[in-house]
This record gives sequence, C-alpha cells and structure tokens, in this order.
Amino acid sequence: MVIVNPSLLTVGLISVALLHANFVMSQYDPEGHKGTTGNIKQVFEGRCWDYDVTRYIPDLPRVTASCEELWKLFFKAFSYQPPCAVALENYQPYLRSATQIVPRDKVLFWSGVFSLAHEYGNYGRRYVTLEDTLIGYLANSITWCGQSIDPGYNVTRCPAWDDCPLEAAESFWAGASMTFAQGAKGEVLLMLDGSNPDKAAYRRNSFFGKFELPNLSKEVTKVSVIVSHALDKPKIDVCGAGSLDLLETDVTERGFSYVCHDDPLAVLHLLCADDPSSRECKLAIKHIRGDLDPSKVDPPAFNKIQEFF
Amino acid sequence: MVIVNPSLLTVGLISVALLHANFVMSQYDPEGHKGTTGNIKQVFEGRCWDYDVTRYIPDLPRVTASCEELWKLFFKAFSYQPPCAVALENYQPYLRSATQIVPRDKVLFWSGVFSLAHEYGNYGRRYVTLEDTLIGYLANSITWCGQSIDPGYNVTRCPAWDDCPLEAAESFWAGASMTFAQGAKGEVLLMLDGSNPDKAAYRRNSFFGKFELPNLSKEVTKVSVIVSHALDKPKIDVCGAGSLDLLETDVTERGFSYVCHDDPLAVLHLLCADDPSSRECKLAIKHIRGDLDPSKVDPPAFNKIQEFF
Repeated sequence: MVIVNPSLLTVGLISVALLHANFVMSQYDPEGHKGTTGNIKQVFEGRCWDYDVTRYIPDLPRVTASCEELWKLFFKAFSYQPPCAVALENYQPYLRSATQIVPRDKVLFWSGVFSLAHEYGNYGRRYVTLEDTLIGYLANSITWCGQSIDPGYNVTRCPAWDDCPLEAAESFWAGASMTFAQGAKGEVLLMLDGSNPDKAAYRRNSFFGKFELPNLSKEVTKVSVIVSHALDKPKIDVCGAGSLDLLETDVTERGFSYVCHDDPLAVLHLLCADDPSSRECKLAIKHIRGDLDPSKVDPPAFNKIQEFF
Repeated sequence: MVIVNPSLLTVGLISVALLHANFVMSQYDPEGHKGTTGNIKQVFEGRCWDYDVTRYIPDLPRVTASCEELWKLFFKAFSYQPPCAVALENYQPYLRSATQIVPRDKVLFWSGVFSLAHEYGNYGRRYVTLEDTLIGYLANSITWCGQSIDPGYNVTRCPAWDDCPLEAAESFWAGASMTFAQGAKGEVLLMLDGSNPDKAAYRRNSFFGKFELPNLSKEVTKVSVIVSHALDKPKIDVCGAGSLDLLETDVTERGFSYVCHDDPLAVLHLLCADDPSSRECKLAIKHIRGDLDPSKVDPPAFNKIQEFF
C-alpha cells in the first residue's frame, strides 16, 4: 500500500526551490561585501590536509608542496597589498606549486551551472572541474583581500568583483582558470545554462570566454558542449543557434572540433531526481515504473502526490 | 547534428561500474588493516575548521567547542589504550560536546547504500545523515586505533572490525549512531539496499537494527523506509515481504508508524543519471525527449550510443 506522505512532499518541493536557486550559483559570485574569511589560515591549511587524505581524486597527481608552504605562497600573493591592485601574476608562484595535470578527456568547464556541473562530474570521479583540483578546492567558498597595514588582510570588508579592475579574488580565479585550461588534454567538456533570460549560455566575456578558451592547450582536440535547460522553463539558448553559434565559431577558429548536445539524458535524470513532479519527468513515470513492476503501470488513484513516491 | 562520442561513452560505462561498487560502500567498512591515518590531528582539526566555515549545513546548530577541544576529547577516548578494549562510554565526552540536534523530519538513516543515501539527502540539504553532522563528518574516511605505548596510537596497523569485540572505531560508530538516533524527531527516513544477494535489506544485527532503532527518541512518530534496487538486477528484498516484514514488526512494536516504498522516483532518477543506458531508464528516454523536443521522438538512427547523449 502506498501511503501519501505530505511532509516528505514538502521537503521535495523545498529542494526543487533550492535547485533552482543553485542553478545559477557560481563560485565566481562574490558573497556580498564580506571581509576575509575568519581564521583563513586554519581553514586553508585544514582543507589542504583534508583534500590530501580524504578527498583524494584517483588519477590526479599529488602536489608535493606542504600545506604550510602552499598557504605561505597564497598569502604572499595578496597580503599587505591594496585590494584593488593585485596583479594576476602575483598568484603565479602559488599556482605553479599547486597545479595538478588532469588526465586526458576528463576536464569539465562550466558556466552558470555550478551545482549541476559538479553533480554531473560526480565531484571529480567522472569529470574534473577546476573546483575539484587542489587550486580550486582550497579557494572555493572562501573570501579574501589584502590591505597595506597589519595584519595584511581586511577582516571586515572586501570589494565586490566589479568595484575595482583587479580585485584580489577575481585575479586569482582568472589565473587559476588559465592554468586549468593550459593543462587540459584530449576532449574537454563544457556545461552551459540555456535557461537564463539575463545571460546568454556562451558569452565572450565569461570566464570560459576570457580565460579558458583562449588558453586551451594545443593538446586539446575537441570541445564537447552540453547545454542544460531548467525543467518546465523556456529553452532560451539551444545548440546550433544564438550564442552557441558564436561559440562554435570561436572554438573551430582555434582549430578544435566542436559538438553540442542539448540536455543529454544523464543530465536530465539529475534534474528529474531533484524535481520528479515536473511536467517533463512525470511523462516518464509510468514507463519506468511499468518496467520495474507491471502491476503498477496503471495503479488505481494514481495522482500527483503518489507520483512523488 | 549529433556526433557519436565514443570516449565519453567509455567514461559513462566506467562510471556505471563505479556506481555498482559504491552501492554497498559504507563508512562502517574497515579499510583493510591500515594504521591510524597519517597526520590525524591536522586532518581532524582541518576538517573541523572546514566544516564550520565552508560546509555549514543550514538549520544544523553550530557546536560551541573549538576544533582543538574536540580533537583533545576525541583523542583521549582511544589513545594509550589497547585497540581491542575501547568501551563505547569512552567516546561519550566527545559525543556530548559535538552533538547537533537535527531538525524534525530531516533525519536519514541508511544501510548498504552509502553513496545513494548521501546523494539523495543532497549532503545535508534535503536530509541529514550521521555523516553530514559534525560527529560523522570528522570521523568518516579516517582510521584510528590506540596502543598503550607512545605516541598512544598505532601508525602501522589497526584491527579489523571483526578482530576484537570492542574495536576502537566500531565502538565510536556505535556511540555516534545511538546519539544520532536519540536526537531524531518527527518522521525519519531509512534507505535500504534491496539488491544484495548476501545481505537482507534489514538485519537486526545491522547498525540500524542494533544501535539506531532501539535508541530512536520518543519524539519520532514514523519510520518511512525506502528500499532501493540496482538497475537491471533482481529485486531480492521488497516492501511487504521478507526482511521488510520483520522491520515493520520491529518498528510498530516500538510504537512508531511504518511506511515502505520501493524505488521512489527521485531515487530511480538518481540511479538513471549514473546509468542512463540501463534497460529501465532507456524505456523513459523517448518520453522525456519527446516532451522536450517533439522532433526528437523518433530520431533517425536512434541507437544505443546516441542514447547516452
């Protein structure tokens, strides 16, 4: 007997709302105007220890520098400097020490689909994003900026990304993205958001357009693009039109092959897992269910709430 | 134009193999006979800093003890003691200091489905497992055991769980599971593996049977069970039969309501995301695709490789 479970349904609906919020979430978004993350040294070094011991991604080379050395190089890049004058080059010694070369055919770039891309990549086990590498892992979710007086970093307020031309965090992510692209080999995957009415799926001034595509190594053969669309929302950008046409031009002009796929099935299932009651996913219900248990193909009182379970 | 991408297909097939390996993965499995995790203090305290700052789960209360204090309490519980004589009570001071009460209707127990349960719970955002709380988070993936001589812990070899009656790690997880169950409120969810030919979905000697069910707080009203089945594998245990009947008896005898669901749709979609070419998931393809783009309902040359994309 299937008993309707309203509270679990509520939780399901809340998670749908969270998914939509996450859909455009990005590590590139500044978190308002917070100051440098409290206890940043402990957090940075702690995440570094954790990464090495419990978050190790098979096939990624280990970094030989110690966590303490990495912190010193990272801190040196921005500390005791005005927040708006950190050159991209400042991070080079740190980036050189922390770089890991990702195996061929495993690099995943993304734009506008932070959560979905990391889920699809399965946090480095299927594909490797910048945030799965040590460089991105350590910096993701933290905030930092320098100041010329002691303690060398501002604990109360860091500028937003648009407030100055070379804000500390943006120049870090620019350098990190370039380094990540320079190490890519074989086929690379790029996941884009085709449902954002305010931003085209591909933009030349995105991180991918500005720092990754122009720095792709000559060992890259193909750029394989996935355009994902939020369930039950209009499809604004699709393969073969609009900004994806521009992307095809920019990719092929650099000598790489190009393929584009709208909503590959594995990605659709990820979206349906978060929102099984959406219109698209509901159509599949009877067919999945029917195969698993023929007696359930046309259950009596088959209604929307039961479909959640 | 859809271009077949053999290397991505290969990656997909590898991920399927990984999924099946993960399906029965568990933090309760000892990792062979390794010694205590190297640099355990730095890793433990580092994860503690990271948890507080970047892995914070909304609605879970913050722990007031510092990371250093927590390490001292944890270390004191097993250090300088023979590995086979650590009583469950030893961990009580640590468990008391690190406990977080999970909000009503959010507790998720699991047995035999480590990866799937954590994916379904969305790492604390939809449901909260023991491993999403600080207590479980800090201990998950590390190994430890004591010895009576300096440095107080064995760096080369820890006993397996079956080697002695009260091995350090097992008594920790027993205490942690009891504490977790004692704090549960409202409806609790339990995810079980219905496809394991060697282990019944519910066993009275599992962690759930031994430590969680008997310690469920009186504020729990209902135990809602999800039995998940690996795709394209025989369904060995299902709701309303076999070990699930025994579970219903054990749950209702304690005064809780009981419901059981085989393969709720959200969980099925999670499995299909990992294995879109399985028989069950393929049946849904045309119907999901058809709704998204009517021109693709019956594409020419619709073959297995294209279905992956």
